[in-house]
Amino acid sequence: MKMFLSDNNSGVHPKILEAVYRCNSEHEPSYGDDKYTERAIELFREVFHSDVDVYFVTTGTAANIVGLSGLLRPFEGVVAPDTAHINVDECGALERFGGAKILYVPNKDGKICTNDIKGFLKSVGDEHQVQPRVISISQITETGTVYTIEEIKELADFAHENNMLLHMDGARIANGIVALNSSFKEMITDMGVDLLSFGGTKNGMMIGEAIVSFNKDISKNFKYIRKQGMQLVSKMRFISAQFIPYLEDEIWKENATKSNSMAQYLKEELLKLPDVNIINEGLGNMLFVQIPKTWNESLQQKFPVYIVDENKNIIRLVTSFDTEKQDVDKFIDFVRNKFC
Amino acid sequence: MKMFLSDNNSGVHPKILEAVYRCNSEHEPSYGDDKYTERAIELFREVFHSDVDVYFVTTGTAANIVGLSGLLRPFEGVVAPDTAHINVDECGALERFGGAKILYVPNKDGKICTNDIKGFLKSVGDEHQVQPRVISISQITETGTVYTIEEIKELADFAHENNMLLHMDGARIANGIVALNSSFKEMITDMGVDLLSFGGTKNGMMIGEAIVSFNKDISKNFKYIRKQGMQLVSKMRFISAQFIPYLEDEIWKENATKSNSMAQYLKEELLKLPDVNIINEGLGNMLFVQIPKTWNESLQQKFPVYIVDENKNIIRLVTSFDTEKQDVDKFIDFVRNKFC
Amino acid sequence: MKMFLSDNNSGVHPKILEAVYRCNSEHEPSYGDDKYTERAIELFREVFHSDVDVYFVTTGTAANIVGLSGLLRPFEGVVAPDTAHINVDECGALERFGGAKILYVPNKDGKICTNDIKGFLKSVGDEHQVQPRVISISQITETGTVYTIEEIKELADFAHENNMLLHMDGARIANGIVALNSSFKEMITDMGVDLLSFGGTKNGMMIGEAIVSFNKDISKNFKYIRKQGMQLVSKMRFISAQFIPYLEDEIWKENATKSNSMAQYLKEELLKLPDVNIINEGLGNMLFVQIPKTWNESLQQKFPVYIVDENKNIIRLVTSFDTEKQDVDKFIDFVRNKFC
Amino acid sequence: MKMFLSDNNSGVHPKILEAVYRCNSEHEPSYGDDKYTERAIELFREVFHSDVDVYFVTTGTAANIVGLSGLLRPFEGVVAPDTAHINVDECGALERFGGAKILYVPNKDGKICTNDIKGFLKSVGDEHQVQPRVISISQITETGTVYTIEEIKELADFAHENNMLLHMDGARIANGIVALNSSFKEMITDMGVDLLSFGGTKNGMMIGEAIVSFNKDISKNFKYIRKQGMQLVSKMRFISAQFIPYLEDEIWKENATKSNSMAQYLKEELLKLPDVNIINEGLGNMLFVQIPKTWNESLQQKFPVYIVDENKNIIRLVTSFDTEKQDVDKFIDFVRNKFC
Repeated sequence: MKMFLSDNNSGVHPKILEAVYRCNSEHEPSYGDDKYTERAIELFREVFHSDVDVYFVTTGTAANIVGLSGLLRPFEGVVAPDTAHINVDECGALERFGGAKILYVPNKDGKICTNDIKGFLKSVGDEHQVQPRVISISQITETGTVYTIEEIKELADFAHENNMLLHMDGARIANGIVALNSSFKEMITDMGVDLLSFGGTKNGMMIGEAIVSFNKDISKNFKYIRKQGMQLVSKMRFISAQFIPYLEDEIWKENATKSNSMAQYLKEELLKLPDVNIINEGLGNMLFVQIPKTWNESLQQKFPVYIVDENKNIIRLVTSFDTEKQDVDKFIDFVRNKFC
Repeated sequence: MKMFLSDNNSGVHPKILEAVYRCNSEHEPSYGDDKYTERAIELFREVFHSDVDVYFVTTGTAANIVGLSGLLRPFEGVVAPDTAHINVDECGALERFGGAKILYVPNKDGKICTNDIKGFLKSVGDEHQVQPRVISISQITETGTVYTIEEIKELADFAHENNMLLHMDGARIANGIVALNSSFKEMITDMGVDLLSFGGTKNGMMIGEAIVSFNKDISKNFKYIRKQGMQLVSKMRFISAQFIPYLEDEIWKENATKSNSMAQYLKEELLKLPDVNIINEGLGNMLFVQIPKTWNESLQQKFPVYIVDENKNIIRLVTSFDTEKQDVDKFIDFVRNKFC
Repeated sequence: MKMFLSDNNSGVHPKILEAVYRCNSEHEPSYGDDKYTERAIELFREVFHSDVDVYFVTTGTAANIVGLSGLLRPFEGVVAPDTAHINVDECGALERFGGAKILYVPNKDGKICTNDIKGFLKSVGDEHQVQPRVISISQITETGTVYTIEEIKELADFAHENNMLLHMDGARIANGIVALNSSFKEMITDMGVDLLSFGGTKNGMMIGEAIVSFNKDISKNFKYIRKQGMQLVSKMRFISAQFIPYLEDEIWKENATKSNSMAQYLKEELLKLPDVNIINEGLGNMLFVQIPKTWNESLQQKFPVYIVDENKNIIRLVTSFDTEKQDVDKFIDFVRNKFC
Repeated sequence: MKMFLSDNNSGVHPKILEAVYRCNSEHEPSYGDDKYTERAIELFREVFHSDVDVYFVTTGTAANIVGLSGLLRPFEGVVAPDTAHINVDECGALERFGGAKILYVPNKDGKICTNDIKGFLKSVGDEHQVQPRVISISQITETGTVYTIEEIKELADFAHENNMLLHMDGARIANGIVALNSSFKEMITDMGVDLLSFGGTKNGMMIGEAIVSFNKDISKNFKYIRKQGMQLVSKMRFISAQFIPYLEDEIWKENATKSNSMAQYLKEELLKLPDVNIINEGLGNMLFVQIPKTWNESLQQKFPVYIVDENKNIIRLVTSFDTEKQDVDKFIDFVRNKFC
């Protein structure tokens, strides 16, 4: 059965699995000196229209933390909304591995804006205070909202005007691009993002995370930091080969289009139900929905979901690349039959 | 072509790949709450005859560093031979992630013995000095030698008598067991190893590393440390499922038997050549061989190998689970035709 | 001229300086094995009526960070108000040295209450999230307010009921005790504080900071952490000897009584002025005062003060143990003549 | 009674104490913005004939670790002899605070030479290995030997030719200069030392440690690292004022001349005794002396000394600035009467 608990619960797109299978034919150099890794990096440069540096890693947390630790010295900080994955879902990995502080501020619909960051600029040069160095945003955000292209540009410009860098946690980057009907180039390269955590796992890959740097100067030591971050996979071709069809055959777009549209369909069906309140715009593949508390028990038994706000009884529903219309229908039918 | 550069250059055993393939059928809980992970852990407990704690990770460095960082507070140290992988091949990951010091001593054929550790006991209680807490050995060692069961027992007993713990870096653990004609239970559980970095990747797995703890008290916080170590894979089933045939169908033994025997065959063939000097006993799958310097250039072009000692011109030759007799013959023929 | 910028600008009480002078007579064991250190620790045990562990350090930041790092493993966090010194005035030292996260929440008059902490209890056992382990409060707070004895008790009880510990940053601990007309025993020992950063420097000592642990179990490794924290002073007697008159002759009380009463006098005089708004209760030695922006330039030239809130034009005025009535009068006269 | 256990057991030179006393007259800006700190830094620039950056800290360990952590990123290492204070006497502070590794090699009379470092150059660019970045030497060394000016120059040149930096742990820097009849300029500035841990505490100061950087580029962020290292003393004038007479009145030379000459006298007297073997040249203020084991018990009761080598029964004898001829005579008389 397909769940709406997390896009991490889905499997792997058949073409990705096939790519894994096919790269098993021969001995290949290890630690990334193989032809699959070379080709995958080439494809990254194509889709971003930029001579990016690419480092494959095994988790989204690793993409965030290895990358950010490469940008930050321990007396520098990263400004982020309180809902940021790096702030609440990575068990303090940045503090431990990077030794650096997250300067978190109250989010506005999962986002941060330049006004939230200005207060930290007063710390510049003051040895008593953490030096603001990076702004980190998630696209799409952890609350299912989507930064517009203009919002990204404004944050990047603000960062660069103030000797800061812009990091984007792209755990669901493909869903963001599809939601904005944009492209890797337009939404990221052209807007001035400095560092991207490129996430593919939630969108139909098996282990599909990469650090993408748009500035070779900031990433020149990343290879050492990835190794220290325990992320230098020996048989790396089995990771990197997955990116070849993902980028070359645009599986990223196919999958994100599917999950985003299933979220839309789910939203439309939910809106037909009484007592249900959709909280976020739902442009990506996540819906935040307020439901009656009386639903909780039966719902959790049949369709376990993540309760985001216990007081307001808001749940999170996530669609995946392999969510089908019938999966949505089953869920809606269950709710309608049970509670309406 | 099969190389003798590293067992990391080999591919994946077909049954392991099949296991990856098969676990793609459905949605499954993420982060290890799936049935494949459950079954894999069960199998670990069976082969070790012990209620071990098991944490899957993605690299051998991660197995070592997450595990050791779980045992060590930053004022404590791990005593290891200078050749230890944690000391020379992990880019200082323990120092960075664990904040702890490696107290390295000159190795004897890649090994350490209790006499090497005694000197550090004088530091106990002295606030100026790092407190010795863990002994770390590699089985098989980085120089291709194998600790006997008695040697392991002696180190474990010494550790426990002195409030220390014994860690085993088992990047090539299967080769060690086969070399000694032993078992997981006999060589590890019964000897008193406290923490094992279980390595499968070099022996025919794709990503096959696990932290195995024989003492639930020392590992009770490992789940947090794995997460901070950026090693909590979201679609974990694709890692853990590999261990099911590896342990259940004894692919570990099949593969290690093959690579060890190929190393023996390679050794025998090398001994027939003039000007060649085998340095280590070669019980596992690694040979250290002194060759004439005049061979280097042509050999590196055709069969790239790792030069371990530039002065003595000692090279390392590693066999893999998929090394065939004909691969050895090709190598020997090349050398004989070229240089003899 | 006496300033109202910070109590750090004041000098040292003559009896403290005399104690430094007197311990110079002979050779003494180093690193704290001397008779002055022994006596000072004895006095700590007397004033706290408890068999406390005491570790002398050289800065208030060191007292906080060495102590907290001793309580926290890197996957654990300390809950504190956003105004906490550890959060905004220590340049991220806890994150760097301890690797642990500060879980900061919006302060209420510089304080935190149990309701602010409850939200973090949901994280307990969840490997994705930092584990709440310590509550940290400052007495008196950074905004010049004072926790009541009941408030301290409630926080300590809440901590202990939830497997947490209570840390008190006592940079101005003497001012707090005097403000409440309390004692070390009543306000700290009896209320259940687990760890105290004892600050004397701001109250007439030269270098007068100590870590005081009320639970030998939590502090059993502090000696190593102090050394790693670079805080084990070789000629320690020159630090510890200062505490002898400070505690024995109750210089702590004499000094804090003086500075608190001068803050009261300053408050009374300020209230006689037009256009001035006292923000905090001013029970300790710090006043937060809203003044007209037109005053800023002339005031900073003559009496440099710290502007806490640029929008509201709130300044901080701090009295010291050596502030005299005439110093207050001079300040008030200057303001009255210039602006009123 | 004067001991020979450590120069840390001695007191403070009267002129230093007087300087501490005198700076207590007024309110002064805190955290180093005071006139005493300004003057002390000026004097550093004079004696070194160089526009050095100076950061006062409170322990020798802090000077070493804050400074080295400023030079090293966590994937870089410092090459040092195994006897280095940073390696064996700082409880792993560099590994914890800096996250960096110490690449220690067997010492030769407490020293390291360029040949010991060459092996690490092979690691440059290899992501598996710690990148060698700093060479650290102690002058005088922990075994009481003294690097010649030519040896220092050779190490500095080697460092700079290989993109490395030279750090000098100068815990006994004055003794080194006096031993070589040299100067701060000649032995340090002119030889190309990049970073100096300037130690005064062992030579008659109370708390007299400073980080001296000869290259503003490497130290531009040191102020943040000192703060994170918990070393930014609030009433800094009481530290920095000590350096004014120390440098201006050449107390450093007066004191080191005294302790060095007392070591010479002690050496001469010891050589008159039977069964005594002087191990080191003894140009500074430390003697390493082999004595009969039968002496140990009585000696330790009367004159506690540090036993450096239990097998060979080698003890360390240290003279101080306040050691007098009669103190040496008493010691010699005791030994002669008791054992000869």
